[in-house]
Amino acid sequence: MTNPTAAMLVIGDEILSGRTRDSNTHHLAGELTARGIRLMEARVVADEAPAIIEAVNALRARWDHVFTSGGIGPTHDDITAEAIAQAFGVAITHRADAMALLSAHYASREMEFNAARQRMARIPDGAVLIDNPISVAPGFSIGNVHVMAGVPNIFQAMLAGVLQGIQGGAPLLSQSLRVERGEGEIAAPFAALAAEFPDLTMGSYPFTVNGAFGTNLVIRGTDAARLDAAMIRLQALFG
Amino acid sequence: MTNPTAAMLVIGDEILSGRTRDSNTHHLAGELTARGIRLMEARVVADEAPAIIEAVNALRARWDHVFTSGGIGPTHDDITAEAIAQAFGVAITHRADAMALLSAHYASREMEFNAARQRMARIPDGAVLIDNPISVAPGFSIGNVHVMAGVPNIFQAMLAGVLQGIQGGAPLLSQSLRVERGEGEIAAPFAALAAEFPDLTMGSYPFTVNGAFGTNLVIRGTDAARLDAAMIRLQALFG
Repeated sequence: MTNPTAAMLVIGDEILSGRTRDSNTHHLAGELTARGIRLMEARVVADEAPAIIEAVNALRARWDHVFTSGGIGPTHDDITAEAIAQAFGVAITHRADAMALLSAHYASREMEFNAARQRMARIPDGAVLIDNPISVAPGFSIGNVHVMAGVPNIFQAMLAGVLQGIQGGAPLLSQSLRVERGEGEIAAPFAALAAEFPDLTMGSYPFTVNGAFGTNLVIRGTDAARLDAAMIRLQALFG
Repeated sequence: MTNPTAAMLVIGDEILSGRTRDSNTHHLAGELTARGIRLMEARVVADEAPAIIEAVNALRARWDHVFTSGGIGPTHDDITAEAIAQAFGVAITHRADAMALLSAHYASREMEFNAARQRMARIPDGAVLIDNPISVAPGFSIGNVHVMAGVPNIFQAMLAGVLQGIQGGAPLLSQSLRVERGEGEIAAPFAALAAEFPDLTMGSYPFTVNGAFGTNLVIRGTDAARLDAAMIRLQALFG
């Protein structure tokens, strides 16, 4: 497939400790799929510079885009921007464009633009700011890495802006059939069908309802006519 | 810290496409934290052997335990067991102990123990079975890798069994304080407090309610007396 590829990197002790449930990966997955961008991998790492640097360098070398969430606030545990600068081997400074945004924001609210808030203007050299329509403090894109906030509504707002500037691919289509039979019953004919349509991906997702086994059969691909053809066969087999 | 470490590996196209939201990582995180095991990293990869092999080999070399979810069913897209065998460089066969379990199960239900269902008895050489009290088909542990089902209630039941055989560590304690102020206001004194307690981890998690900014301040560590001492200071600063 020629669809663009992507990875997600969630930065946050609070996810790994079980305190918070990550919702940004699921949101990103849906947005990318809708634009024909394939999410190939997701990782969660702790708020530790070596872990962030290693993950971002592995992911950016391998996939077309990397999206990160978390660790760009004003507190001492927010180390993502510094780690990304290190990963790219560039300097990080209080950038004039980010300082101007934040300075105006706090002035308008008559709040002190203190050292902690100024930390949020620390942007790696060569990065482009990502607009934050919720709370002003920007994210940034550097190379193929898009660095965003962890708070879900801010992540979502930043992502919407970033995605406007990214070329998508052919829509990643999917159709599914719910079958009231266990996977073990349908596996052989389903595998045979998958072998007949090597350009499509076929997945089987079991569930139980009131002790009875059922299976959602999902066909994915980019060619609508081929998907339709496979679904007609699937319906004939199990519908 | 001398607490045991762990990683999670979620195997599943359905998570990366946005069709399904992973809940197993969050469940695992809570269970591990309660037992003093530190979840250091989590990854999601597609149902593709090279991706699974690379991830499991990277994670098992680095952390004390690796937990996986997904891809051990009877259908053609369930390739986790084969990939794990390849990662360890061992053979995989229809193992007698797993065959006996499944054979008896299907016989008792008067269901055919067909080739697809027999696939669920394919276990890498040297692995130990993980009990599946929900739907019988076992998971397995090989080396420090624990391979479990993706369906949440089965994952949870398998994990409960696995955790009985794993040595935990000193409880990972946490206390938190909710402050009705934005992070930018509390960052400097909070950082100073964190510097005074280098044996503890202090994190700051912003939220908004009705447009007002607030922050959850969380202190983590294994020494209850030190946590209490830090919380008294935190209360004095922001309580």
